[in-house]
Amino acid sequence: MLSRARVKFIKSLQLKKYRIEEQCFVVEGAKSIQELLRSDFEIVLLAATGSFLATVVPFSGVKEIAEVSERELSEVSSLDTSNSGLAVVRMKVQKALPAVMPGFSIVLDGIRDPGNLGTIIRIADWYCIRNVISSTDSVDFYNPKVIQASMGSIFHLDTWSTNLEKLLGATKHPVYGAFLDGDDVHNVRFDKNGFIVIGNESNGIGPAMEAMVTCRISIPRYGQAESLNAAVATAVICDNLRRSL
Amino acid sequence: MLSRARVKFIKSLQLKKYRIEEQCFVVEGAKSIQELLRSDFEIVLLAATGSFLATVVPFSGVKEIAEVSERELSEVSSLDTSNSGLAVVRMKVQKALPAVMPGFSIVLDGIRDPGNLGTIIRIADWYCIRNVISSTDSVDFYNPKVIQASMGSIFHLDTWSTNLEKLLGATKHPVYGAFLDGDDVHNVRFDKNGFIVIGNESNGIGPAMEAMVTCRISIPRYGQAESLNAAVATAVICDNLRRSL
Repeated sequence: MLSRARVKFIKSLQLKKYRIEEQCFVVEGAKSIQELLRSDFEIVLLAATGSFLATVVPFSGVKEIAEVSERELSEVSSLDTSNSGLAVVRMKVQKALPAVMPGFSIVLDGIRDPGNLGTIIRIADWYCIRNVISSTDSVDFYNPKVIQASMGSIFHLDTWSTNLEKLLGATKHPVYGAFLDGDDVHNVRFDKNGFIVIGNESNGIGPAMEAMVTCRISIPRYGQAESLNAAVATAVICDNLRRSL
Repeated sequence: MLSRARVKFIKSLQLKKYRIEEQCFVVEGAKSIQELLRSDFEIVLLAATGSFLATVVPFSGVKEIAEVSERELSEVSSLDTSNSGLAVVRMKVQKALPAVMPGFSIVLDGIRDPGNLGTIIRIADWYCIRNVISSTDSVDFYNPKVIQASMGSIFHLDTWSTNLEKLLGATKHPVYGAFLDGDDVHNVRFDKNGFIVIGNESNGIGPAMEAMVTCRISIPRYGQAESLNAAVATAVICDNLRRSL
């Protein structure tokens, strides 16, 4: 059973304002919760059906567990169908960005669509890119749709929201960015360290970030589409990166 | 100005039932309408703002043009913001599938998410894959969110909804499908003709389709994510296909 106050609290976390105020966010769905339970995030509340709870024991570090019916769950859930559970999770204090970032990092210049951001996190996880760094005007990492689309991958990597110009202005590693006139990504020999800049869905990489790019790359086009979706472009670049290393 | 009857008619096309009854679908947004106007689809009605109409003339083959205010447009639009126009378009009678499909075709085994289907169409267009063929239980090509996500690419290629077992049972071309235990797609030498099967978002390629696959391929994984989104996997496979040809 969830008290009225709990229901209200959970629902309030759909809004960024309350997420920031409470420093908490919501994780839903069996797969995401399983990944969460394996992570070191602090779980403030786990509300789940009895049958789901039976599949995830033993677990520790959960402050409060509430067994709920599917009906109760659907009342607080943002998903169309929810039959597993929902967790309220404490945000981590953002770590200081290391002065030198080893390996590759994905840098997001104004990604607005939460589905895209979540999908990019899942792609980064697949290709073992451990850092995802977004501009402060990108959608926030704790948006419920971001968490949902990341399918648990958000718990596998480090995320930052920061001033990108400052970050990239200070690095000695190559900064890759996709443009129409760049080098064919099929032929690029990637460095062992670097940053991949992904631009906004409508406008691509903005002028300030473009000035930071040291290696202009291009995904070759064979047909008529004008562009690729931001997450799709990320995947194609990461696949070519891993192929070339 | 749009009459009440027109407003009702346009809104009804959000539902598949009425799209099939009327054999019409809705196209929204500047980019998609521009691509539509270059295509040979029959436009039953174009409702657009004066400023948008000024950017797209000259055009022909539009049966009815209504200049509308942004406010009128937002009333019939399914988009959050719409300041260009909306077109009602006649569906084409589905062509008979050719006995032999030259080049590559993408085959969709139960894709349910309209955003994914639209993104896959855009990817097919980028990689010049001219045929997208879906199982009859996939989301329909004329769903407004499919049209939206395809960004006009739906007007550049041929689409079919059909019995996939019959189609693939009759072909002599290789049928590629992604599984966890397939050959590394980075090393696959693709044939010049063939089919790429993309599975359902949750369950992947079903048993009936798996039996049709002649070349099991695999996108190598470097990190911890369990899978890639269906559209993302399509893009990575298409990119590797074009690289290998």
